[in-house]
Order: sequence, then C-alpha cells, then structure tokens
Amino acid sequence: MSENDVFPNAWAVIMAGGSGTRFWPASRRQRPKQLLPLAPGDDRSLLRATLERIAPLVPPERVLVVTSAALADATAAELPELPRANVLAEPTGRNTAPCVGWAASHVRRRDPNGVLMVLPADHHIGEPDAYLAVLRRGLEAASRGALVTVGIEPTRPETGYGYLEVGEEVGDQVHRARRFVEKPNRQRAEQFLAAGNFLWNSGVFFFRASVILDAIATHLPGLGQQLQAYELAAANGGEHALVEKTYATLPSISIDHGVMEKADEVLVVPGSFGWSDLGSWTTSWELAEHDESGNALPADAVIVDAKGNFASVEKTGKVVALVGVSDLVVVDTEDALLILPRSRAQDVRAIVDALKARDDERV
Amino acid sequence: MSENDVFPNAWAVIMAGGSGTRFWPASRRQRPKQLLPLAPGDDRSLLRATLERIAPLVPPERVLVVTSAALADATAAELPELPRANVLAEPTGRNTAPCVGWAASHVRRRDPNGVLMVLPADHHIGEPDAYLAVLRRGLEAASRGALVTVGIEPTRPETGYGYLEVGEEVGDQVHRARRFVEKPNRQRAEQFLAAGNFLWNSGVFFFRASVILDAIATHLPGLGQQLQAYELAAANGGEHALVEKTYATLPSISIDHGVMEKADEVLVVPGSFGWSDLGSWTTSWELAEHDESGNALPADAVIVDAKGNFASVEKTGKVVALVGVSDLVVVDTEDALLILPRSRAQDVRAIVDALKARDDERV
Repeated sequence: MSENDVFPNAWAVIMAGGSGTRFWPASRRQRPKQLLPLAPGDDRSLLRATLERIAPLVPPERVLVVTSAALADATAAELPELPRANVLAEPTGRNTAPCVGWAASHVRRRDPNGVLMVLPADHHIGEPDAYLAVLRRGLEAASRGALVTVGIEPTRPETGYGYLEVGEEVGDQVHRARRFVEKPNRQRAEQFLAAGNFLWNSGVFFFRASVILDAIATHLPGLGQQLQAYELAAANGGEHALVEKTYATLPSISIDHGVMEKADEVLVVPGSFGWSDLGSWTTSWELAEHDESGNALPADAVIVDAKGNFASVEKTGKVVALVGVSDLVVVDTEDALLILPRSRAQDVRAIVDALKARDDERV
Repeated sequence: MSENDVFPNAWAVIMAGGSGTRFWPASRRQRPKQLLPLAPGDDRSLLRATLERIAPLVPPERVLVVTSAALADATAAELPELPRANVLAEPTGRNTAPCVGWAASHVRRRDPNGVLMVLPADHHIGEPDAYLAVLRRGLEAASRGALVTVGIEPTRPETGYGYLEVGEEVGDQVHRARRFVEKPNRQRAEQFLAAGNFLWNSGVFFFRASVILDAIATHLPGLGQQLQAYELAAANGGEHALVEKTYATLPSISIDHGVMEKADEVLVVPGSFGWSDLGSWTTSWELAEHDESGNALPADAVIVDAKGNFASVEKTGKVVALVGVSDLVVVDTEDALLILPRSRAQDVRAIVDALKARDDERV
C-alpha cells in the first residue's frame, strides 16, 4: 500500500480486450492497439500508460485487467508488476456488461467494500493531473454508493460518441446525469455543443462492486445469476472451467445500455483533461506535433510540397520522402505498408477484412 | 569465339556511368540504376541484361564497359565473365565524346579493324530479336566505314528526346541521316510524328574504331590529341596515371554534338523493338503489367478504390495496402520510403538534393 493510498478500497478495472483493427498494420491480432505506443511522444503502450497514470490512486495489486484469452499472456508480459491473477481472460468478447460484472465479482470476493473505477485501455489523456482529480471525485461519489460516470466537456460537434445530459449539481463538481443520449447526427451534435449541458460519454465508470453487482442482478438477471455461479465455482476452484464453458452464453451488451441507462440514478463527474479516444490513424495525426504544413512525420523526413500527411515508420534509420502529396496516412512496418487518405482512415477495416478473407498471416 | 561469331571484329562499348538519381531510393550513389533490375519482369540488372542481349553478336571478351572509377568494382562484380581490363574507369564523367573516344582507342589497340557498337546500359528492349537484327545492320554498315546511328520509330509526340530526320535509303533498311534535331516542343513533336520521317535518336552508334578516332581528330582535335597521348602512355604502362591526371580536362561534350552532327555523312538504321529509355519511376509503371485499375503493384498487394498506382517493395513478404489513392509512385527499400504522384517522378531529384545537402548517407 503506497503512502498516497487515500482510497484503500479503490480498485481499477482496465478493459483491454480490443482488437484494434483500425490501427493495422501496427496493430495485429496478437498485438492490438492497447499494447502499442500509439500516443505521440509517449513510448509506452496505451495499456502501460493507463496503469502508470492511475498509480497515484491504486497500486498494481489492486488493478485488474480484463482481456481476451488470446491476449492474456501478452497483457501480463506488458504489465509484469501486476499479479498474474489480476489478468482476467475472457474466452470470448461479450461487450462490457459481462466484463465489468465479472471484474466486480472478483473485486468483491477480495474486498467486500471494494470500489471500482472502470477504465478503457485505449484512451489518451493530455492532462494527467486534471484526470486524476476527476478520478478522485468519481471514487468519492461511488464510495457513497452511487453509480458514477465521467462526462467529457465536448470540444467539437462530434457525431461518433454518445452523450450525457447533465442535471443539477449534487456535490462538488458532481452532477446528476439526466439521461444517456445515443450518437447524434450532426445537427443535434451542434445543438448539444451550443447547449453546454451535454457531455461525451467517456466509458469511464465508478461504483462499489456490490452496488454494480446488485444493479446487474436487477437489470440483467441472467448475467447476475451466471456471475453468482462463477463466484460459487471459484470457491471450489472450478471458476475457470465454468467460465470457459459458459462465457459465450452471456448477454453481449454494454454496461451503459444494460445497466447505467436503466438505473434510477447515475451521477456524472464532468471533466476536461485533454481526453482523446485513440480511434484511428486520423486521431494519431491530430494528436501529433505538426510542421508548418500540417505534416506529422518522423523528424528526419524529407518533403517537397507535402501537406497534412501523417507517417509512422517502425524501422529505425529509415527515411520517409514525400513529394506533392497531401493528407495521406502512411504506416510502414516490417511486413506491411499502408497508404490511404486521412479522411478514409476507417477503411483500414476493409484491408484487414481482405487479408483475413485470404487467410493472410499479416493481420 | 562463339560459333555465331559472324562479326569477328565487332566490339561492344557499354556506357554505364550513370548515377540514376531519378530511381532513388532504389538507386544510390554506389548502386545506380544500371546495376539494378529495373525492367519489370526481369530480375537481371539493366547492365547484365544489356550484356546478355548482345551475346549472339559479341562474346564478353569483346565487350568494354565504361563507368566511373567509384563504380568500377561493382560493375566488374556484376559482370564476372568480363575480363577485368575490359572495365574502363573514368576518373570523372565528361559526357559521351571522351568516353566513346577512349573506348575506341582501346579497341583499336587490340584490334586495328575493330568495329564498335556503342550501347547505353539503361535501355529496356521489349523485342530482343528485332533489336539484334538492327544491330547486325548497323555493324554491317559501320564495317564499310560509315558512322551509323539507330533511330527509333516514334510511338508518341515525345518532347524528351532528340530526333533524326531520315533521308534516302542507301542499303537494306539503312538510310542517310539528313540531320540531327534537338528536343522539340510539343507542336513540333506532333509534326515529326505525323511526318513519319523523324526518328528518336537512341544513343546507339556504330563505327570502326579508326573511323571514329579520325572523326574525333577532325572535329574535336583537343580530345583527339589527348587520346593519342593515352595510347602512347599505354605503351609504357603509363596510361592510368595520365588518365587520372588529365581526364577532367577533356571537353565535356556528347558524341552526338561533338562529332556525329558535324560529320559529312551519318547513316541511320530505323528500328522498332519495344525500346524504352528507363528514365524515371513513371517509365517503370508504364512498362509493368497493370491490373484492371491501372495499378502496377506486387502480386499480393491489397487495394480498395486505388487506381493507376505503382509500388515497388524491396523486402520479400511485405504486403502493400492502398485505399483510395490514385496515380502514386511508392518505392520502399530497407532504409527509405518514397511516395509521390506519378506525374512528379522527375522531382525525386529534389529529394536526393535535400539528402545530399544535409550529408545524409541514404543517397
């Protein structure tokens, strides 16, 4: 327990199951984005950065990481300071409700008073101190029994995220969440931005383990029963086998839809800490430093009439030379070279699908 | 002497001094284009392809290669069947007149009746048999004492080449050359194409060694005297030292301008043999096989909405993936990645200049 351990019952649950198709060719089935150093200027993997960012609040022994069985070893290797038992391996991905519920069950077994903070592994946080202040507020509110979420103050009319409508303040910078809102169209997103009381739903949550498990039992009773069965099986050393056998039958639903939106009360902690969902190579370009022509390139790149390009080159000592091209994403790895316009960064999926369709090993 | 040695006095002079900047990053100072396999579908270097193409006419012991001192060893290594003494190393490039004159001097010393055919090392020949027929005609005409050139039947109004105006036929498919014409503008190039009696000046020549040396003595007397001095020095083993000391003082002028254009009579052998001057990556794209969208890419490339692109990847097992890009040139080597529009292939020079300016080793 560290000397800063002001939340001795706080546990972090890092959700690290993503496959990160959109960061191909850097990301691969066996090396998804959370295991890659995708944040510009940071040579740590996103997962390690997540762990180190919360170190002032929770020591590694109180961090659980939920990932896929295929990635469990790589995940454990990336975070050697974590007890191996803290890596929970899902036999198959079933969205976030089973993930959060299973992790909460593990926390409650170890600490009946445990409070979870649930964090995606693939966020970029530009202002870590402001972030920690928000996490502290969230933990405090959750300690008192609330279901708590973090809402990001929007900086643009983003149509790619869900929103939270913020209600009255019920504590210091803690509000009631009036409602969850699905991804809006452009017009509504602009209205939300203008209104000022709509925040991006960040996917960061806080709740006592017992509180979220009760809420799951209420709103997703099938999942609740299965989680109880895991807990019983764990007492006899049979949890692993039961999880293997039954995890695929759990309802594939998000904790947002399955529980939070149905709960009588959810609190929201508004935050502004340079948050970014590292969703595609376009985000990488946005976050990186640019030259005067808007290029984000390796330092020794050579350019002639090139504007707005992003290039990532894995190999040390390899020079990138661009002439007369604009707004391209270029990603060069040992066994693959991807080139596409920044505006089509989402279409990396089509490349990965094509490679999978022909059983290509380079995915 | 091979059984096909129908021209026992024929000697080939391959001009292989180019630095090939425009094929960066495949070409480098120490590995210029003639040492690279740049012809699509042919894994031989351009230089080796040149040597093997003329094998039915001249055996390796009667082939001289003129290159720069810096490239002499690499050139000899590329053509191990050549006697080492057949690689002539210029201390510095002085255009083609000194190169041809010096090679002619070497030929005459070994064979007073020698007939030269002068061939650039960086041509692509699509129809080797038709090419050999043209070379035979050229050698025959030159054996009788003429200065002979090869004119390529134009297939487009090319403004990048010089032209030859063809006069009356003086033998079987051998004509008098009426005049040499400088690179024309677009309008004149179209007139030349329509007129039908203008051919591209290919840079391929034939002449008896003694005839071209006499012509040099007449039209470039300074060069002629120096070549005589080399010959005298050679008798005492002093040629190398004299060449080292004086080559840079030779007139830097082409054999076309310096001699051929001034001669009383030049003959031209018209030819059509799938000739291409491998001048830039655009030529590589033109010569390569294309998919239905005009892409010339490695066989296992993955594309989505990509048209008219060329990609060359040095590394085996590396996949190229293109989404939504058109008419790009992409060249990937171990230590450099070049991307530019096909229409700007000439601008590779600017990249090479920038690298040189910062003393970058990757040129």
